[in-house]
Amino acid sequence: MRRAGGRVYLDHNATTPLRPEARAAMIAAMDVAGNPSSVHAEGRAAKALIERARAQVAAAFGAEGADVVFTSGATEAAALACEGRDLHGSGVEHDAVRAWITEDLEVDQTGRVQVTDPAQSVLQMANSETGIVQDLPEGLAVTDATQVFGKLPVAFNWCGAQMALISAHKLGGPKGIGALVLRRGTDLAARIRGGGQEMGRRSGTENVIGIAGFGAAAEAAARDLAGGVWDRVAEVRDILESSIAGSAKQTIFVGKDMPRLPNTSCLVTPGWKGETQVMQMDLAGFAISAGSACSSGKVRASRVLTSMGYDEVMAASAIRVSLGPDVTEEDALRFAEAWLEKEKKHRAKAA
Amino acid sequence: MRRAGGRVYLDHNATTPLRPEARAAMIAAMDVAGNPSSVHAEGRAAKALIERARAQVAAAFGAEGADVVFTSGATEAAALACEGRDLHGSGVEHDAVRAWITEDLEVDQTGRVQVTDPAQSVLQMANSETGIVQDLPEGLAVTDATQVFGKLPVAFNWCGAQMALISAHKLGGPKGIGALVLRRGTDLAARIRGGGQEMGRRSGTENVIGIAGFGAAAEAAARDLAGGVWDRVAEVRDILESSIAGSAKQTIFVGKDMPRLPNTSCLVTPGWKGETQVMQMDLAGFAISAGSACSSGKVRASRVLTSMGYDEVMAASAIRVSLGPDVTEEDALRFAEAWLEKEKKHRAKAA
Repeated sequence: MRRAGGRVYLDHNATTPLRPEARAAMIAAMDVAGNPSSVHAEGRAAKALIERARAQVAAAFGAEGADVVFTSGATEAAALACEGRDLHGSGVEHDAVRAWITEDLEVDQTGRVQVTDPAQSVLQMANSETGIVQDLPEGLAVTDATQVFGKLPVAFNWCGAQMALISAHKLGGPKGIGALVLRRGTDLAARIRGGGQEMGRRSGTENVIGIAGFGAAAEAAARDLAGGVWDRVAEVRDILESSIAGSAKQTIFVGKDMPRLPNTSCLVTPGWKGETQVMQMDLAGFAISAGSACSSGKVRASRVLTSMGYDEVMAASAIRVSLGPDVTEEDALRFAEAWLEKEKKHRAKAA
Repeated sequence: MRRAGGRVYLDHNATTPLRPEARAAMIAAMDVAGNPSSVHAEGRAAKALIERARAQVAAAFGAEGADVVFTSGATEAAALACEGRDLHGSGVEHDAVRAWITEDLEVDQTGRVQVTDPAQSVLQMANSETGIVQDLPEGLAVTDATQVFGKLPVAFNWCGAQMALISAHKLGGPKGIGALVLRRGTDLAARIRGGGQEMGRRSGTENVIGIAGFGAAAEAAARDLAGGVWDRVAEVRDILESSIAGSAKQTIFVGKDMPRLPNTSCLVTPGWKGETQVMQMDLAGFAISAGSACSSGKVRASRVLTSMGYDEVMAASAIRVSLGPDVTEEDALRFAEAWLEKEKKHRAKAA
């Protein structure tokens, strides 16, 4: 996403621009006005759109034969998957998962979570702030695949988890639509009840336009991934990190030696508040984030980092730079240059 | 909504076509790619879109100063408003409300519900199947305004209820977005938790495109309503009913003498299954429904009608014809003619 004024968007883990394929599918769906629950021709046309998108999402996520229950996003999917199940997890999970779990799993300094009882645990595939990828134990109850889906090859059917949370807007679909993916035959009590849509698992007239966009985006994301798009993103990310590392000797790149998402860089510069960095870089024309972006404007010490053993000062000194396929090497170098200039000023002031 | 092949859409209570204003607002919102929770410029632009739509919805619904909590639709809003509150209601409520209530309020033969304890009760403003409008008692806990909003003048601030459920797709917005409207200061526990969006009442990255469409549709719906559009719809509906009443002497028009939605006609033709009528009329080019349309393809005796004292045979012999502003007098007469032809055949067969 580039804007007038030459802004560079480096917050793709918060949300990504809508893909042209999703846009086109959504605009086409605007003309399909029937209610998918209606039995007449107009209703059946709407229903067909949903089922097509469901197949697209399942194929892109390697979940053929699994159930895809559309929800209003991964947050609702997390509630549907986790509420009332006495699941365990760690402090590196997203707030939407943390709301429902006992947070007692250990996280080591490299960011890896130690799962003791997979059948009663939740574990993310990758972390939104650091990009660190987890090994999933066989028989895991729930995995949060939100950040991985579309960025790394993943096949639900082989991941070892019973359920997975996914979201459209992290891979170029619209915001406000996601899904809970489950192995067929899994019991699931509906949280939102009424008309019995989604095979009784999630009532409410379906977000037809959003679902159509999700399907098209998932298909396009899988195609891009297979085409090597994210390998190039990783190269640009590495250039960005090298440029910064050459000058900012104090800065730590969290998870650099771990398997990571190809687009994510988590920079800790001790004593320089992430919040301040975000505002300074925003004014300089770069969109980045401090901590998780899904926290309604709240900015504070990253709990992902404190869970990994960083102290409060360190955890409050983090920023996340998350690239998308549209970010060029030139953009990365411009960012590094602008950031280093601010960092120099910060050091001069702090000294 | 007219289609190739001259189809006439008479199922506007199930869902209405997207208004051009909503379509335009949604397409414009597709270019606003930031996450509304992000503090940078891209995030603030997305947040501004949501707040504009919130003001549009509040103004159109006469809810200035009240809180508008966006949800994935009226079904989710019903769960948010009603779950765990020990509320009472009747069998004429929508399934999304019935899922959470004790169903012990009496309904009389005219369709009016007798509320005994308003502070612990739910009552719809109007029924989706019959169009019958209720008087709301002062101090009502929750009202379902889904069918009224956009079709009859209504001001939340004067309706006597503490909370109201509304939905975009019933007034020309997209499916998959709605809201719970509450008097400011009302306690409300979030059901979907996580990032703390919607002032902590409903977490999850917001459906920005859908919300933009809801705002634009609500504004346009209020303008049309004020312009008298639905008075003309009522005239067309009355012509349709008169044409049928002239020949089909057995057919009952439920709620005809009650205050009703201007667009709704509920026809009971004893012994002729509503389900059969819907299929026959679909083949003849008309989209109508039997019973509530929000029931995932299930067709059965209308529980709204059994609650009013109709027997099972009568309640299974009902159809709902619900008009929109695009339905002309000619369409209505064509429908009446086609329906009467089938009705004649049915009578001949039954005799």
